Amino acid sequence: EVVPTCERYAVRRLPFARPGERDVAFFERLMPGRVVTDEEEVKSFNVDWLKSVRGCSQLVLKPQTTAEVSQVLRYCHERNLAVNPQGGNTGLVGGSVPVFDEIILSTALMDRIISFDRVSGILVCQAGCVLERLNEYLEEQGFIMPLDLGAKGSCHIGGNVATNAGGLRLLRYGSLRGTVLGLEVVLADGSALDCLASLRKDNTGYDLKQLFIGSEGTLGVITAVSILCPQKPKAVNLAFLGCQSFAKVLETFTTCRVMLGEILSAYEFMDEKCMELVETHLKLSRPVTGSPFYVLIETSGSNSTHDEEKLNNFLEQVTASGLVIDGTVATDEKKIKASQCFLFHKSMLWSLRERITEALTHDGYVYKYDISLPVAKLYDLVTDMRARLGQSAKNVVGYGHLGDGNLHLNITAESYSHSLLDAIEPFVYEWTARCSGSVSAEHGLGFKKKQFIEYSKPGQAVALMRRFKAMLDPKGILNPYKTLPSAP
Amino acid sequence: EVVPTCERYAVRRLPFARPGERDVAFFERLMPGRVVTDEEEVKSFNVDWLKSVRGCSQLVLKPQTTAEVSQVLRYCHERNLAVNPQGGNTGLVGGSVPVFDEIILSTALMDRIISFDRVSGILVCQAGCVLERLNEYLEEQGFIMPLDLGAKGSCHIGGNVATNAGGLRLLRYGSLRGTVLGLEVVLADGSALDCLASLRKDNTGYDLKQLFIGSEGTLGVITAVSILCPQKPKAVNLAFLGCQSFAKVLETFTTCRVMLGEILSAYEFMDEKCMELVETHLKLSRPVTGSPFYVLIETSGSNSTHDEEKLNNFLEQVTASGLVIDGTVATDEKKIKASQCFLFHKSMLWSLRERITEALTHDGYVYKYDISLPVAKLYDLVTDMRARLGQSAKNVVGYGHLGDGNLHLNITAESYSHSLLDAIEPFVYEWTARCSGSVSAEHGLGFKKKQFIEYSKPGQAVALMRRFKAMLDPKGILNPYKTLPSAP
Repeated sequence: EVVPTCERYAVRRLPFARPGERDVAFFERLMPGRVVTDEEEVKSFNVDWLKSVRGCSQLVLKPQTTAEVSQVLRYCHERNLAVNPQGGNTGLVGGSVPVFDEIILSTALMDRIISFDRVSGILVCQAGCVLERLNEYLEEQGFIMPLDLGAKGSCHIGGNVATNAGGLRLLRYGSLRGTVLGLEVVLADGSALDCLASLRKDNTGYDLKQLFIGSEGTLGVITAVSILCPQKPKAVNLAFLGCQSFAKVLETFTTCRVMLGEILSAYEFMDEKCMELVETHLKLSRPVTGSPFYVLIETSGSNSTHDEEKLNNFLEQVTASGLVIDGTVATDEKKIKASQCFLFHKSMLWSLRERITEALTHDGYVYKYDISLPVAKLYDLVTDMRARLGQSAKNVVGYGHLGDGNLHLNITAESYSHSLLDAIEPFVYEWTARCSGSVSAEHGLGFKKKQFIEYSKPGQAVALMRRFKAMLDPKGILNPYKTLPSAP
Repeated sequence: EVVPTCERYAVRRLPFARPGERDVAFFERLMPGRVVTDEEEVKSFNVDWLKSVRGCSQLVLKPQTTAEVSQVLRYCHERNLAVNPQGGNTGLVGGSVPVFDEIILSTALMDRIISFDRVSGILVCQAGCVLERLNEYLEEQGFIMPLDLGAKGSCHIGGNVATNAGGLRLLRYGSLRGTVLGLEVVLADGSALDCLASLRKDNTGYDLKQLFIGSEGTLGVITAVSILCPQKPKAVNLAFLGCQSFAKVLETFTTCRVMLGEILSAYEFMDEKCMELVETHLKLSRPVTGSPFYVLIETSGSNSTHDEEKLNNFLEQVTASGLVIDGTVATDEKKIKASQCFLFHKSMLWSLRERITEALTHDGYVYKYDISLPVAKLYDLVTDMRARLGQSAKNVVGYGHLGDGNLHLNITAESYSHSLLDAIEPFVYEWTARCSGSVSAEHGLGFKKKQFIEYSKPGQAVALMRRFKAMLDPKGILNPYKTLPSAP
C-alpha cells in the first residue's frame, strides 16, 4: 500500500473548499455517467505509476468536450475547488495525481482526432488521445508522431505537451516547443483560449501557447493540440553495441554524428547494471554481453541502400578503431542472429532500452533523477553517487538520451528510507548545479522536484514564474502543490 | 525623403517624458563616447531598411554590456522615457525604428561571442552579433547557424530572436523556438533575467524565454542568446527548376519531400515576374527561362555520393513525368554550364531568390505581405490580388518558403498611395483569415501590421497578450506603438 503523500511529505493543505455532495450533483447534471465517486475506481487515479505518491481525492470527472472542461473550471473557480488535471498518469515526479482532495479532471474521454492534413503533416486532436494510437493512425498515412517514449501505450498527448515530454526522437525531430503549432487551453476561470493554429509559421503577437507547454497543468488545462508530424521514414535500422568505457561511448557518439549525419535518429546509452536488471526482472535477453556500457543507435532515412551503407561504414570504423568491441544490427529486411543463437528484431532491441524503467520498479523502491549535464561529465555523477552510497543502496544505475545530454540516474533500495534520501539529496542537485546542469531534463518538477527548482533557475526567474501563475490562476486552484516551490 | 511615420499614420504620441540634456548627460557619464546625438548620424537609425517609416529620435545609445543595458532601462523606467531597442534594423514591418522620439538602444557594440562547445554545438553570444559573422565563425569549426536569411550580412542575432525570424533553413532545422536554448533579457525596470542555459533539455518550471522570442522588443531587451547549431553539411546541392503551373510546383514539392527526405533543406518558389524584376533591376542572369514558376531546391547531407544519387533520381522522375520542363543543378564539385553558355554556381542561384526583396525596392514603393496559408491555396492569393488591382499596381508578385506554407506577396507602385492601399487592405487580410492563415508568417507585426492582429488571433488571446505586456512593462516604455494594436 502506497503511503499517502500528505503523510510522507511535509505539506499543508491550502484553504480550498472541500468537494461535497452538492458539487457531485452539479457535475452529474453536467456530464451524466462520467462522474466517478466509487472508492475503488477512484483509487487508481490517486496513485502515480511509480506508486510513489498517493492523493486522497474522492472525485474523478471525465469530460468529453472543451465546453465541459470550461464549465467544470468555471464552477470550481467560483467555488474555490482545487483541480488536478490528469492525462495517462504516467508522470514520474508526482505531477499527475492529487496531493490532497483535489478533483481529478481526466482527459481519458477526450480522445478524438480532429483533423490530419497529408500535405502539411499537421495533426489536430483532443488532449486525451493516447500517443501510441496517434502514431498508429499516422503510420497508416505515411507519417509518425515527432515524439516517442516508453509510456506511449498509456500517455496522452495533452499530458505530453503539458510536461514538454522529450523522449527517444528528440535528437532527430526536436522538442515539442518547435513541433507543437497550436493549443487550445481552458484557463483557471473557465475561459477557453483558442490558439489552435495549424500553421508552420505565425508571428502575430506573443506566442501564448508556449507558456502552457511544460507548465504541468498549473496554468491551464490543455484540451486540444495541433502538432507537426514528420514523414514516416522508409528505412529504420538499429545497432546495439558494447563499449569498454564511457569515454568510448562518447567517442562513438562523435563518430556516429559525423558518419550517420542526418539519418541518426537516436543515440541511447545504458550501463551494464541496467542490462542485468532487465535480464533479471523481465527475462529479456540481449545480443551482446560483457561490456560495461551499451549503446543503442537508430537511423531513420528515406533510402535503405544509402542508410545501410552509412551504417556499415560507421560500424567498420568504430570496430576497426576499437571503440566498439561487440555489436549487432537489426534492419527492416533481416532479423539478426546473435551469438547466443537467438533471433533479435528491432522491437526487442528497443525493449532493452525502453523497459529499464519497468525493470527498476521490480528492483525495489526507486529514487529517480533525470539530469541534463554536459555530455563529457554525464556518467561521473553515476560513479560518484555509487561510491557515496556504497552498501546503503541496492543498485545505482545510469542510462539515457546521451545525444541530448540527458542522464537518467536511478537508485534502488529494498524500501523507502529517509536516511538514504538524505544521502542522495541535496548532493545530486548540488553536483548538477556545479556543472550548470538541469535537475529535471524532461520529467518536469511536479510535486516531488518542485523544491529544487533553484538549483537550475535563478531566484528572479522563479519570482517571475510566480507572477505568471498569480496572473493566470489567481486562486491557485490548478494543480496546486506542483511545479513552483511552496511559498517562501 | 521618407515621410515621418507620425505624419503618414494616424498615431498619437503617448505621454512619455521627452529626452533632454540632463538625460544625455547621464548617458554620457554611463557610456562615454557611445551616445550619439549628431543629427546626421542619428538619421540612419530612424529610418527602416525599406525606407517606409521614419521616427524622429534624437538619441542613440550603444551599450557594450548587459549591465549598461540594465542601467539605461532602470533610468528610463524611472524617468518614464520610451525606448526603441534596435538590432541590425533590417525588419520589414517598422518594428525596429522609433515612431516618435523614443531613445534608440542599439545592440551594435554587443557583438562578443561568449562560448562555443564543439561537442554539443551550443553557441552563446551577445545579442548584437551579426548573423553572417556567427555563421562564418561556426563554419570554421564544422558547424552552421540553424537559420539563414537574406539580411544575414546586417541583422543581429538578438533581433532575429526578438522577431522569431524564419528564413531559408527553417524547413530543415526548425524554428528558433526549438533551437534557442537560453536567453538573457533585461526587463523594462532594468532588472536582468538570466535564462542563458546551455542545455538541450531543461524542464524546470515555466519556459520564460519563449515569451521574449518574437515579442519584438516590447517585453524586454534581449542581451545574449544561447543557441543549438547543427553540424555543417558535407555536401550541399542546389537545383533550379522551371514548372508550367503552380499545381506542378506543389506536386514537385510532394515528390521531392518523399525522394529527398532527410536531405531536403530548402524548397523555395518564385513566379516569373520575380525573376524579371531581378533581371531588370539587378542584372542577374538565370539558367532557366520561359516558365511561369521557378523552384529552388537545396539538399544538405553528410554523403555527397548518396545525396547526388537521391537528387538525380528525383530529377529524372520529375522530368520524366513532365512536372519540370527545364532545370539546372549546382553541386560542390562542379559549377554548371547552362544553356546560355554561362557558368552558374550555388551562390548565384541563391541570389536569384535572396535578392528579390532588393529588386522590389528598385521597382518603386513596395506593399509587402508575409502570409501563411495552406500550401494548396498559396498562389491563389497572388492571382486574386493581381486581378483585383489590375492597372493600378505596377507589379504583383509572389514567392516564398513553399515548404513552410509561407507566401511573400509583394505589390509595387510608382509611389505610395492611400487609394491603392485601400484596395489591398483589408482585402488581403480578410482573404487570409478565411483560409485560417496568418497575416504575418515570419516578419512580425511591428508598427505596420499591429492593427491587423485580430485577423489571425482571437480577441481573447490579444487581451491576454495585453495583460502580459502590462505585467512586464507597466509603463509601456519598451518599443511602444508596436506589436499590440492601439488600445481599443
